[in-house]
Amino acid sequence: MTVNQLVDPNDPALRSWVESANDPAGDFPIQNLPYGTLDGGVAVRIGAKALRLRDALDADLLVRKLTDNEDFQYAAHTAWLNGIAELEPEQQSMLRRNLAHLFAAGSPAKAKVERLLIDAESPTDEPPFVVGDYTDFYASLHHATNVGSMFRPNNPLLPNWKHVPIGYHGRASSIVASGTGIVRPHGQTVSSDDGPPAFGPSKLLDYELEVGFFVGRGNQLGATIPIAEAWSHIFGFCLVNDWSARDIQKWEYQPLGPFLAKNFATTVSPWVVTREALEPFLVAGPPRSADDPKVLAYLDDPNGRNVDITLEVLVSSAAMRDKGLAPTLVSRGSFRDMFWTPAQMLAHHASNGCPMMIGDLLASGTVSGTTKESRGCLLERTWRGTEPIALGDGTERKFLQDGDEVVMRGWCERAGYPRIGFGECRGIVLPARA
Amino acid sequence: MTVNQLVDPNDPALRSWVESANDPAGDFPIQNLPYGTLDGGVAVRIGAKALRLRDALDADLLVRKLTDNEDFQYAAHTAWLNGIAELEPEQQSMLRRNLAHLFAAGSPAKAKVERLLIDAESPTDEPPFVVGDYTDFYASLHHATNVGSMFRPNNPLLPNWKHVPIGYHGRASSIVASGTGIVRPHGQTVSSDDGPPAFGPSKLLDYELEVGFFVGRGNQLGATIPIAEAWSHIFGFCLVNDWSARDIQKWEYQPLGPFLAKNFATTVSPWVVTREALEPFLVAGPPRSADDPKVLAYLDDPNGRNVDITLEVLVSSAAMRDKGLAPTLVSRGSFRDMFWTPAQMLAHHASNGCPMMIGDLLASGTVSGTTKESRGCLLERTWRGTEPIALGDGTERKFLQDGDEVVMRGWCERAGYPRIGFGECRGIVLPARA
Repeated sequence: MTVNQLVDPNDPALRSWVESANDPAGDFPIQNLPYGTLDGGVAVRIGAKALRLRDALDADLLVRKLTDNEDFQYAAHTAWLNGIAELEPEQQSMLRRNLAHLFAAGSPAKAKVERLLIDAESPTDEPPFVVGDYTDFYASLHHATNVGSMFRPNNPLLPNWKHVPIGYHGRASSIVASGTGIVRPHGQTVSSDDGPPAFGPSKLLDYELEVGFFVGRGNQLGATIPIAEAWSHIFGFCLVNDWSARDIQKWEYQPLGPFLAKNFATTVSPWVVTREALEPFLVAGPPRSADDPKVLAYLDDPNGRNVDITLEVLVSSAAMRDKGLAPTLVSRGSFRDMFWTPAQMLAHHASNGCPMMIGDLLASGTVSGTTKESRGCLLERTWRGTEPIALGDGTERKFLQDGDEVVMRGWCERAGYPRIGFGECRGIVLPARA
Repeated sequence: MTVNQLVDPNDPALRSWVESANDPAGDFPIQNLPYGTLDGGVAVRIGAKALRLRDALDADLLVRKLTDNEDFQYAAHTAWLNGIAELEPEQQSMLRRNLAHLFAAGSPAKAKVERLLIDAESPTDEPPFVVGDYTDFYASLHHATNVGSMFRPNNPLLPNWKHVPIGYHGRASSIVASGTGIVRPHGQTVSSDDGPPAFGPSKLLDYELEVGFFVGRGNQLGATIPIAEAWSHIFGFCLVNDWSARDIQKWEYQPLGPFLAKNFATTVSPWVVTREALEPFLVAGPPRSADDPKVLAYLDDPNGRNVDITLEVLVSSAAMRDKGLAPTLVSRGSFRDMFWTPAQMLAHHASNGCPMMIGDLLASGTVSGTTKESRGCLLERTWRGTEPIALGDGTERKFLQDGDEVVMRGWCERAGYPRIGFGECRGIVLPARA
C-alpha cells in the first residue's frame, strides 16, 4: 500500500465492507472513524466494531510513514489518545485516510482486517484521554439566562457575559468513563439562604448536557492561540455529563464558583469524534442581535463556526429498566445554538498565556436552547422542581433519584451525508455512602 | 548499616557534619531534610547542599529494605517527587531516618556521602511534583474580610464562609518553578463596572502569599478522607505565589469565580518540607469566637492543627537589583493565623467523594493577619492602591511593575529547636508580550 492509495473518509459516497457502518441510523459510518480505547489499547471505531491500532500496526496494515514513525508506534501501544493527538497534523490525516482505506468497500485489506475487528461495545473503564486540566464554560445564552434568573432574579445575565466566554476550572481527577456509577455526594446544604447548613446527601442531584472537546495542539506558557488558528488546535469532541448537586452548589458557590457541587464526577462519552469528521457540519452560530456588544478582536473568528450537533437526554428509573420500558426523552437541543464557539473558548483560555496541553478537556457548559424541551439540565427543565417531568413508569422527577440512569446522545445529520454520531454517555445514580 | 542504626531527625540536639546545615539562621538543618528535584533527579537538601537519591542508591548508602524495593528504585530515578510520596508510610519514615543517619555528625558514611553532594542552589526549571489537580482555598478570615469589603462593601464576609472552607479549582498546567519569569498577562478589563471592556495587558498585577501542600495519600472516587486522618494524608508543604491580575479578576469573576486572572502562572518553592519536619511546630489555630458557628462534625478535627510558619514577602525593582540594594520587606505574617487548617481543607475537598491524587497541590489562599504589615497581597497591603508602599529605591508601588521581583520566604522557629525553613519562592515580572 502506498500513501497515494489512501482514501478520503470525508467523501460522502464512501461505503464500508463493515455492514454495520452503513446503517443510516447508525453513529459510526466510515466518514466518522472516532478514536477511543478498548481492552487497554487505542482503537478506531467503525459501525459496531473497532480496530486496535497496535493490531493494525502488528499486521502491517499501515503505510510505511506511520509504521516507521516511533511516535506513532508509541502512541499505538498506549491506552489513551494523548499520543495520537500528539502526532503531527499530516500524520493524523494520513492515519485517518489509511484507516478509511482499510474499511472501504472493496478494500484489498478486508480479509486481514476482518480477523482483527473486536466488539466496540465492550465497556471501557477509563476516559479516552489522560486529562491534565479540565475547564468548564458557560457558553449557552439560554442556560446562563435561565439559571441566572433563578439564582439572581434581579440580575440574571451579568454585564460581562456577552463580552467574556465565562468559564471555570473543573476537576480532572473525577472525570470518569461512560458507565461509571455516580455515588450521590454528601455536602453542606441549607434550608434558608443564610444557613445554618447541615451535612448530608445531596437532595437535588442533576445532570448537565454538554459537549466537550480535547486539545490536540497546545501553547507554551506566555504564548497564545490566535482565534483564527484555534479550531485547528482541537483534536476532537465528546459528550459530557457535568453532574451537579444543586443544593450544595447554591450554598458554596459564592464568591469563588462551583466546587464540591461538581467535582464528585464528570462523565465523558468513550468515542472521540475528530474535528475532521465534524467539518461537514460547521454552521454559523446564532446571529448577534443589534443590541449585543461587538466581539473583541481576539475573539472575533472570521470563520466563526458552531457545530450542528443534535443532543438528547434520556432518563430511566431502575423500575423502568427492570420492566424493559424505554427511557424517557427529557431534553433535545442543538449545539449550534451556543453563543460562544469552541474556537472562541479555546482562544480565550490561552489569551493570557495559560498553557493548554494535549488532552486537556474543555466543555461547553449546559447546552440549552430557546424552547422548554431544549433545556439541558433538570434545574431548567423542571424550572427548579416546579414543573416535574413524567417518566415512563408513571413517576415524576424534579431531580434525579437513586437508580436513575441518564443517557446522553448526540449526532450530526444533513441531506446527502451519512449521520456522524457520538454514541452514548451513560451513568446510573448510586445511593449515597452510608 | 542496619535498620536499627537509623537516626531520628526530629531529635533537636542532632547536628550534621555538613557545616552549612548547622547555621542557626539557615533553613535546612538535619531536622528538615526537604525533598526537591535537582539536575533531573529527586534529591534531599541539607544546608547548602543536596544529595540525589539515585546517587545514594548507586553508592549503596541505603538500608536493604529501601535498596531492594522496586518502588523506591523507580522513585529514586525519576525527576519528580510523586514516586517518593507513593511509598508506604513506613518506607518514607525509613528513608528520612536513613538520610539523617548519612548526614549526622560522626556518621561513618561521611566520606562516601561527601563526594556525592551537589550545590543545592542550582536552578531547577520544573515544579517538584507532577501536579494532577491544583485547588486554591480562601482560608484566611482576614484576607476574606479585607477583599470582600473591597469587592462587596455591603457584604464582605458571605454567610457560608465560616461554615465551608471555600475553595476553587486552579490550573495545574501553569504551576511553575521558582525563578520562572512571569509574563504580564493580557485580558479584558473595564473602566466602569458594567463595561465595555478593552483587551490589553493587566495594569493591576499582584502576588498572593500562600502556603501549599502536596497530597501524599489520596482516596478513591466516592470514598472520603476522614478529618482525623487528613493530616497523615499530606506529604509536605511549600510556599506558593498565586499571581493575580486584579483588573481581569474584577471583570471576569462573577458568577463562576477567578479564571484567567489567576491561571497565567502560579509559582511554587522548590523544596517540599515534609509533614514530619513540621510536626514540632503544630499549634492550635485562633480560637473561634462565641459568635462563630460550631464546626460541622466532618470538619471537626480533635487534633486541630495549624502550622506556625512565619512568612515574608520582599519586593525589589530592577533598579534596586542593579544597584545592589536589598529588597524591601513588604509583608510579614504567620500561617498560624488561618481560620481553616490544612487537614480541614483536605477533608472538605474529599467529603463529596472527589478523588484526591498523590501530588495534587492544595494552597491556602492568601495568608493575612490582623495587622496591616501581615496582609499577604498588594490589593490588601496598599488597600486597593490607596496606600502605596515605598520601595528601597524611592519609588512607590500600588501594584507590580515590569522588572519587579517578588521573593517569598517562610520558616518555623521555637526555643530549643533548629529553625526549619522553606527557602525562597521567586519570580520576576516580565513585560507583556507585544
